[in-house]
Amino acid sequence: MKAKIIITPKKAVLDPQGKTVQNALEHMGYAGVAGVHVGKYIEIDLAPGTDREAAYEALNGAAHRFLSNPVIEDYKLEIVD
Amino acid sequence: MKAKIIITPKKAVLDPQGKTVQNALEHMGYAGVAGVHVGKYIEIDLAPGTDREAAYEALNGAAHRFLSNPVIEDYKLEIVD
Repeated sequence: MKAKIIITPKKAVLDPQGKTVQNALEHMGYAGVAGVHVGKYIEIDLAPGTDREAAYEALNGAAHRFLSNPVIEDYKLEIVD
Repeated sequence: MKAKIIITPKKAVLDPQGKTVQNALEHMGYAGVAGVHVGKYIEIDLAPGTDREAAYEALNGAAHRFLSNPVIEDYKLEIVD
C-alpha cells in the first residue's frame, strides 16, 4: 500500500518555476501550453497490514502540518494499493 | 485538458530528500512508513482544442529530453480532461 501526496502552489501564488518551464516549452517549439504549475510529489510506502483509514488520517495530518505549507500550497492525498 | 507529469528518482538512486521526510515522519510518531520517495510534479494546462495524441507525443519528448534526467529519474506522463 502506498500513499501519494501531490503538493502544488495555490493558484493565487506566484509560481516562478512553472513560469520557467512554460517559457522553456515555448522556446523549444511546443505550442498550446496555456500554463504550467510545478509542485512536489511524495510517495510513501506503507508497511504491510497498515490500516487504510488510520494511515489516511495520520498522513493527512502530516501533510497539513509539515509536509506542505498551507498558507501558499494545496495538497492532495491518495492511498492506493 | 491537462497533462500531468510525475518525475521520481530511480529506485537505485540515493534519495536524500525522501530519507529526510521518512526520518521526520518517524520522529513525529508516524509508524508504518517503509520508505519515502520525493519527486517533482508538473501540471501543464493545454489550450482548448489541443489534439490529445499530438500533445502526448510532444510532451513525452519534452519530458524525456529536458523535463527529467533519464539517467537518474523516471517519469510518468498522463493526459486528463
